[in-house]
Amino acid sequence: MAVGLKEPAGLLPVEGVRLSACSAGIYQNKRLDFALLAFEQDASCAAMFTQNAFCAAPVLIAKQHLGKTSPEFCLINAGNANAGTGEQGYQDAIDVCHDLAAIAHCPVESILPFSTGVIGEYLPTDKLCAALPGLYNNLADDNWLDVGRAIMTTDTLVKGISKKINIDKQPVTITGIAKGAGMIRPDMATMLAFIATDVKVERGFVEQILRSAVEKSFNRICVDGDTSTNDACVLIATGKSKASVPADLNSEAAIQLIDAITHVCAELAQAIIRDGEGASKFITVEVNGGKSTEECLTVAYTIANSPLIKTAFFGSDPNWGRILAAVGRSGLVDLTVADVSIYLDDVCIVENGVRAKDYLESAGQAVMSGHDILLRVSLGRGKVSESIWTCDLSHDYVTINAEYRT
Amino acid sequence: MAVGLKEPAGLLPVEGVRLSACSAGIYQNKRLDFALLAFEQDASCAAMFTQNAFCAAPVLIAKQHLGKTSPEFCLINAGNANAGTGEQGYQDAIDVCHDLAAIAHCPVESILPFSTGVIGEYLPTDKLCAALPGLYNNLADDNWLDVGRAIMTTDTLVKGISKKINIDKQPVTITGIAKGAGMIRPDMATMLAFIATDVKVERGFVEQILRSAVEKSFNRICVDGDTSTNDACVLIATGKSKASVPADLNSEAAIQLIDAITHVCAELAQAIIRDGEGASKFITVEVNGGKSTEECLTVAYTIANSPLIKTAFFGSDPNWGRILAAVGRSGLVDLTVADVSIYLDDVCIVENGVRAKDYLESAGQAVMSGHDILLRVSLGRGKVSESIWTCDLSHDYVTINAEYRT
Repeated sequence: MAVGLKEPAGLLPVEGVRLSACSAGIYQNKRLDFALLAFEQDASCAAMFTQNAFCAAPVLIAKQHLGKTSPEFCLINAGNANAGTGEQGYQDAIDVCHDLAAIAHCPVESILPFSTGVIGEYLPTDKLCAALPGLYNNLADDNWLDVGRAIMTTDTLVKGISKKINIDKQPVTITGIAKGAGMIRPDMATMLAFIATDVKVERGFVEQILRSAVEKSFNRICVDGDTSTNDACVLIATGKSKASVPADLNSEAAIQLIDAITHVCAELAQAIIRDGEGASKFITVEVNGGKSTEECLTVAYTIANSPLIKTAFFGSDPNWGRILAAVGRSGLVDLTVADVSIYLDDVCIVENGVRAKDYLESAGQAVMSGHDILLRVSLGRGKVSESIWTCDLSHDYVTINAEYRT
Repeated sequence: MAVGLKEPAGLLPVEGVRLSACSAGIYQNKRLDFALLAFEQDASCAAMFTQNAFCAAPVLIAKQHLGKTSPEFCLINAGNANAGTGEQGYQDAIDVCHDLAAIAHCPVESILPFSTGVIGEYLPTDKLCAALPGLYNNLADDNWLDVGRAIMTTDTLVKGISKKINIDKQPVTITGIAKGAGMIRPDMATMLAFIATDVKVERGFVEQILRSAVEKSFNRICVDGDTSTNDACVLIATGKSKASVPADLNSEAAIQLIDAITHVCAELAQAIIRDGEGASKFITVEVNGGKSTEECLTVAYTIANSPLIKTAFFGSDPNWGRILAAVGRSGLVDLTVADVSIYLDDVCIVENGVRAKDYLESAGQAVMSGHDILLRVSLGRGKVSESIWTCDLSHDYVTINAEYRT
């Protein structure tokens, strides 16, 4: 199903990170559904969480723990989001953390819990606690792919990428995994992602790097405009490599590292869209000629969230009227219609606010028949350009989401 | 397809309004697609139009004409929206108006043109002009149903309603027709509607009445969150009845009239939702306990526009987690999760922000299996209550919109 996306053949270990995945039996059909990431307490770890007011129990706990000490573990289950479960859900997640703390001889605050899956059902704590010793004993540095598989829900394949760079002539490895296929929109893109690198960076700066990378990656995607109660993105820098990056945004090393981590996050974000629920097209929406980042993104998301445009993409229909209508209703002040142009790849479909003179339906149709499409809107009123990634709205999206719990 | 909706058996004539409909051949398959409403110049006529920056040529012209003189004609075609057609589109619409003006011996400014249908194709002016004499000669007071049929696009049935009331013991008739099934959202609900009454009201007050009625009807519905380039709603008061309403919002007569016209508009608005593209459920979303109308509507539309909730309704899945998540992401400041309750009809599914203790999935399921569903969200932080109407997102919606132009 996923548009132009394959599972990674392998993912590179990151020195200082050990991982493990198992089946705790959360799903009726046995599959990997429980995972652990372990790293030493002197690693620098930062996390960003969902903005949803109804954030799930594990999100509340992870935020609290992160504020108290340096984490050593990320504990993740799929199949159950432990959201909308109130005090019992909170206690359930804490109980599982306590069990792991006892096994690992660590403070409970050094464990960050994450859950993803169905909302509103209580966590099967018995099953999770029973699986913990095995999970802990199998920690190894080459289990990234298995962990990537264990955190999947409606995903059809594992999303992961590794990247090697040199910083001050020292090799640096970055490996990331992510899950997410629906309920995707910005404001902390709706998903789980874990990215690790062996470079040495101080904790406060890791936070800055994560925020900057997320802004240009997970915050630039949308499948259906919904945000979940459980999203989180974690960046760990173990400091095991000989390379070290100073906490200075303008240093060459920092620029290199931020570029590389942004690249990894962008690849993962795009993979989420390529594997979007029911997606048959991967669409880049570029809005240029805007007065500000904000207005470019407003137009881009109005287009990307329009069911009429998404279904037209599904039907390979170059329905530029719907695109024009979406630009028109995006609420830009003093928009001059005659300044707007729209392109599908290199085919100009709208020029000066009307159907382009030389536009042939067959040319638009040819672009729409592809699977990777660039939709460019030129507002003609400024110099800012922004891009986001989205997918179409298909019968499979309806099927997947009408039948998710059955 | 339409949920719990039948075509009106008949619609009452409104003294002072004559109508006509014909097939001008805009559609490949012959059907009624061209219509005319005629009334005398001393009638009071008001109109509201789409807020879309890309409003279509006929909208631009109707607004200009309305500013210049009292209208005598509404000229409407389906099958072609004459939107995104630039200067030629504008000239085309004016040309057709001029032809009608010559036939009717009236100033061109007294004609309001309306178009609905595919965006971005030029108006077949030859066909329209050829049909004008027949259209004009067949004007009669009992053609409301035919005109209702002529303005349909993806609608599956005619939407119309008549209502009789007494004002100061004098009988007053109100008849309205509407079209619209997709691209429906507030800010001038996305549709065409023509409502007429024989009561005597001054023009400025007709505008006030229309604004008030639209606010509680067409501005309270959503199918897919898109606004079109062509929406308009027209209210005509011919003054042919012996009843007259003073321009005083607090007068008993005005209150009666506003109530009745709001009722007619609400019935038409709900009919649009019941006939929403692919709709299999009619859903009333009520948000109460809010601090303001604005926040109630924000929560209601976040729910109504969520593809995840709409597909869950289609699948008859009482997925309260998705509803809770939508409330959570609607952006209310200082929302206390523990104050939120959610009901499906009378079944409490969420209490104090978590799954209700006594909730049984079978009870939620029973409500979801119906076709008319009330979803109530109680925010527990104020006294304001607002309701909107929406529908589910089905396979048929995708099919209709992926194949609209083919």
